Amino acid sequence: MKPITTIAFDFDDTLVHNETLFVVTQERFYDLVAPYANAGDVHDRLLQREIANLHLFGYGIKGFTLSMIETAIEVTEGKVPAEAIQQIVEMGKQMLDHPIELLEGVQDTLELLAGSHRLMLITKGDLFDQESKLARTGLGDLFWEVEVVSEKDPETYRRVLDRHEVPADEFLMVGNSVKSDILPVLEIGGRAVHIPYVVTWAHEEANGHDKSSQDFISLDAIKELPAYLNGSGG
Amino acid sequence: MKPITTIAFDFDDTLVHNETLFVVTQERFYDLVAPYANAGDVHDRLLQREIANLHLFGYGIKGFTLSMIETAIEVTEGKVPAEAIQQIVEMGKQMLDHPIELLEGVQDTLELLAGSHRLMLITKGDLFDQESKLARTGLGDLFWEVEVVSEKDPETYRRVLDRHEVPADEFLMVGNSVKSDILPVLEIGGRAVHIPYVVTWAHEEANGHDKSSQDFISLDAIKELPAYLNGSGG
Repeated sequence: MKPITTIAFDFDDTLVHNETLFVVTQERFYDLVAPYANAGDVHDRLLQREIANLHLFGYGIKGFTLSMIETAIEVTEGKVPAEAIQQIVEMGKQMLDHPIELLEGVQDTLELLAGSHRLMLITKGDLFDQESKLARTGLGDLFWEVEVVSEKDPETYRRVLDRHEVPADEFLMVGNSVKSDILPVLEIGGRAVHIPYVVTWAHEEANGHDKSSQDFISLDAIKELPAYLNGSGG
Repeated sequence: MKPITTIAFDFDDTLVHNETLFVVTQERFYDLVAPYANAGDVHDRLLQREIANLHLFGYGIKGFTLSMIETAIEVTEGKVPAEAIQQIVEMGKQMLDHPIELLEGVQDTLELLAGSHRLMLITKGDLFDQESKLARTGLGDLFWEVEVVSEKDPETYRRVLDRHEVPADEFLMVGNSVKSDILPVLEIGGRAVHIPYVVTWAHEEANGHDKSSQDFISLDAIKELPAYLNGSGG
């Protein structure tokens, strides 16, 4: 196998905490609408609404906020007061303005690897939100290239690698989502390392993925990555 | 002067109609909240709210929709019913799903210029929204590179040109906003052609711009661009 020259990282829940912020916000949302709601399955209704809106809203906090507003109106049959809707908008703003917390070991590991490899960031989400978040991490200068993409499918990875003239067989992707960070990269002939996060958004779970046929590595934490690369000849 | 090798176009209100969609939606919004509103200055309040939210929401339809919701709650002192808020969310969805209308002459002009120059698209807004819109125009293949950026300042243009190895003195930007498409490009040593649109968002108007010291060309329509380029040696 050729040596790895370029390592790309997913952002949310790989380098920075993200899903926990959604989970915390969702809990606040459930508490907020509970007094007005007839339906007990607010959780499922929110997820359904998010998935139904994905083709229009894409990924990100603003779309999530609009989906919470719609769900609040829907599950309360319009009884939710305007004041509560304003609180939902405020929750969205707080998420956008939330301090960025790096996962443990991220800074040291990236600084180490930046000395030996070209590092990329490949992330979904709102361009504006993600650029703002990256700026707040202070890690921006460690990355050779940053790509905010609207979908992480094999075509997207192929386009990104072509654009930066990175051969797929010298490319390693690191991320927490089997569906978005691992399988599409393997499909185009790249390598991938899975680092699970404590929580995964229901929609990001790869359905029907056969655990026994995994041809990618799972690590427990990003700090194990340099040793893995040395061991694998990368 | 060196010949122009690369021509970049702004997207919204330069190639496709956009601001008219915002204006039409705003009119619907004013009609919707009028029965519940005390304040007569809903227009000013919405603009203030949009500008206040810009640092968190960036540019785009989802942020605009959230700003409409906040303004509706604010100017009605919470009296706006949930049903009307749902209608505001629907307005946002309709904007996101709206058929894309090219400005007159865009298709012919781009097809002509693509034979002689490298064409770029440089646009602000939500990445997901703009990619989706570009796909719907059918013009995607005419562009050498597409850049969705979160701000159009001199640093952004410099970074984009560096990234694609385009010398500033071979670069021409074409757009409808003096503030975003013209002045920052002149500042980094590029050339710029201004093609005004019928409407400009109040926040995009370049304040204090001295019309008498213009060192850029204004054309009435994109179809005049090839003749201008021939005349100027571009």
